[in-house]
Amino acid sequence: MAIPKGTTMHFTSEQRLDDAVIEREFTLGDIPGILWTPASASASAPPSAPAPLILLGPPPLGLRKAYPRLVARARHAAADGFATATIELPGSGDRPLWPAAEQARADLRRAMEAGEPVTDEIIDALVLPLVDRAVPEWQGALDALLSLPELGGPVGYSGGVISIGTRLAVVEPRISAAVLFAGSFVPRAILEEARQVTIPLHVLLQWDDEGNDRQAALDLFDAFGSKEKTLSANMGGHTGVPQFAGEAAAQFFARHLK
Amino acid sequence: MAIPKGTTMHFTSEQRLDDAVIEREFTLGDIPGILWTPASASASAPPSAPAPLILLGPPPLGLRKAYPRLVARARHAAADGFATATIELPGSGDRPLWPAAEQARADLRRAMEAGEPVTDEIIDALVLPLVDRAVPEWQGALDALLSLPELGGPVGYSGGVISIGTRLAVVEPRISAAVLFAGSFVPRAILEEARQVTIPLHVLLQWDDEGNDRQAALDLFDAFGSKEKTLSANMGGHTGVPQFAGEAAAQFFARHLK
Repeated sequence: MAIPKGTTMHFTSEQRLDDAVIEREFTLGDIPGILWTPASASASAPPSAPAPLILLGPPPLGLRKAYPRLVARARHAAADGFATATIELPGSGDRPLWPAAEQARADLRRAMEAGEPVTDEIIDALVLPLVDRAVPEWQGALDALLSLPELGGPVGYSGGVISIGTRLAVVEPRISAAVLFAGSFVPRAILEEARQVTIPLHVLLQWDDEGNDRQAALDLFDAFGSKEKTLSANMGGHTGVPQFAGEAAAQFFARHLK
Repeated sequence: MAIPKGTTMHFTSEQRLDDAVIEREFTLGDIPGILWTPASASASAPPSAPAPLILLGPPPLGLRKAYPRLVARARHAAADGFATATIELPGSGDRPLWPAAEQARADLRRAMEAGEPVTDEIIDALVLPLVDRAVPEWQGALDALLSLPELGGPVGYSGGVISIGTRLAVVEPRISAAVLFAGSFVPRAILEEARQVTIPLHVLLQWDDEGNDRQAALDLFDAFGSKEKTLSANMGGHTGVPQFAGEAAAQFFARHLK
């Protein structure tokens, strides 16, 4: 399911946000995405050096629904001099329905509503095919994005589905540092892959997120092979990462991508 | 064992460190301590407003041995405009030997050397009497320190023995925010007291500290009743808190004490 070599990126819209960020929607084959770049302070400013790029891994609810949170992160990153980009996950948003993924989500819902345990089989069926399809797409997107003159390395990943971020950190050498959100189910196979991760990591965990398996998040953090890894656990519920914790994550990228 | 009301503070030495910090040793009754205050930029500068104070709870190895780490924290805090102070723990450093504490330490050593479990009884005997004696002393020191014109509120606590910091956070209303180091044994009784803590907390945990009971630290973090609490877990061994994690703790105090 990787994007075929030579697939070109087509920009489909462009707008300025607050004179500080240029937002461009694009397609890469049939995958929609969004690129945010810091706008030059004025039209007469000299062309700036290529901006380091942070890939924003979205949650699986689709780019349209995740847009408010994504654009907030993009604005914050642009203020720090970073470009950001995201692509739609397989089976999400406007992309074609993916029956196997729908089935896995239905099985999960059924188990949770019945108060039954969420088995390893359910988690594997839900997450592993998504990781297998999404990671090559993100690598293809990285090829296309880094061919733009306004973007350069090093590259960071800041992500919604922690298993995708973990696999990307293992297989994609262009990614130098990652901020990961512990908040989705983690297959045992990903826990094993985590031992191969060596890049610096900053892992955010919402301690009072009742829908999140806290022990699985702690086990995953423990498994990462990185010499520099930070777990930042905070209060505020699933989507309530406190502002100061977001700033600490931004400082992590500033330390590692500049 | 509280310091009797009216016990006065006697300064026994004064020196300038790098023209940036004034270090004064003092005694409070028979308890030695050290106070660090930011030095005015120049002698002709107007007298500055009272500096907010951070109490530096030392590890139980004594002020003399802990001095290099304490003075590093004091310098960092002074650069941020904070005064810092510490006092010797009961039974540590130059203070009189405390046979019960010596016995508890010997029992702990024996259990660990024999590879036996460290029982609740050993932990209680080691920590609870220390908390019971140290906390009123720290409150007495706070009375004396806050009577100095160059020190003001709000007050932070940044501490070495997490059970002392926990009790202080419960019983001492003048403490507005605390940075706690998870790295010492925690009695069950302290775990219960932790539920009554409501001030903002920033808890540092060295994830790969083999001498530390990580699960006890996570349980204690979970127990704290504070609405704002952050767990920052990092690599680097018992004394190897990374510089960026120390800076995040400093930012925590800057947010809450200014």
